[in-house]
Amino acid sequence: MHAPATVYWEDIAPGALYEGGRYHFDEATIKRFAAEFDPRPTHLDADYAATTFFKGLCASGAHTFAAWARLNHDITPGWALQAGSRVDELRLLRPVRLNDTLSLRLEILGKKRHPLRADFGFVEQRHTLLNRRGKPVLTMLVEVMIQRREPAP
Amino acid sequence: MHAPATVYWEDIAPGALYEGGRYHFDEATIKRFAAEFDPRPTHLDADYAATTFFKGLCASGAHTFAAWARLNHDITPGWALQAGSRVDELRLLRPVRLNDTLSLRLEILGKKRHPLRADFGFVEQRHTLLNRRGKPVLTMLVEVMIQRREPAP
Repeated sequence: MHAPATVYWEDIAPGALYEGGRYHFDEATIKRFAAEFDPRPTHLDADYAATTFFKGLCASGAHTFAAWARLNHDITPGWALQAGSRVDELRLLRPVRLNDTLSLRLEILGKKRHPLRADFGFVEQRHTLLNRRGKPVLTMLVEVMIQRREPAP
Repeated sequence: MHAPATVYWEDIAPGALYEGGRYHFDEATIKRFAAEFDPRPTHLDADYAATTFFKGLCASGAHTFAAWARLNHDITPGWALQAGSRVDELRLLRPVRLNDTLSLRLEILGKKRHPLRADFGFVEQRHTLLNRRGKPVLTMLVEVMIQRREPAP
């Protein structure tokens, strides 16, 4: 049913850069996500939002994080990802506004073996979500656990 | 249209503890979120998931984060929240499994004035998502910006 995973821990090189993807925040999408997960008027009511700090409708931070997950999936097809367990220094640098479109830049910072399991390794990454003007809206460091092709002896 | 915000920066006390909420992860909810934001077979296919590290269907980490946003909203009604801009030390300690139900514990760690704006202040919080057995599945530090009732002169 599923294509076999093809990108293993051994295939991911420190210094490598992955870029791309496209996630668009239209009004219906912003409001639907907010109604389910973050029903604040800043995300649901454009008239009210115009009176707030950001002076206009913007997406929930949780929606931006979900869009990141989608972009991360889209730009790393076939990765034998087993789990993501650590996020550090997550910064929301700008609001995600109505009709923004985001893409993702993923830099591989480093790798290490799993201390206990020979069939998995860790990869340290820096993620940056960019809007259409190329301005960062979210940055964070992420450590993920990825399957090894050939478990160490 | 909206009830006025009633809990201001001045009303939030370091040391205060907020607890509660309930978010349930049934199979349809896990799969619907994953299909939209994190379409990996570990979140979509129970048979495949049984062969993976977690040995069973589990929710996307982005879904867990979205559930946190919902619980945060539910247990802090009326907060004059303007933005959340920083998350540190986010740790996914356990998978969120099929039919888990999560609640939230929110501790107020500290407060500070906005360095530039008299009408806002910051609140530093520690958040812990707990499953029904009282075990933490996610912990993180969050800094939010909240409206002040009486802007400083």
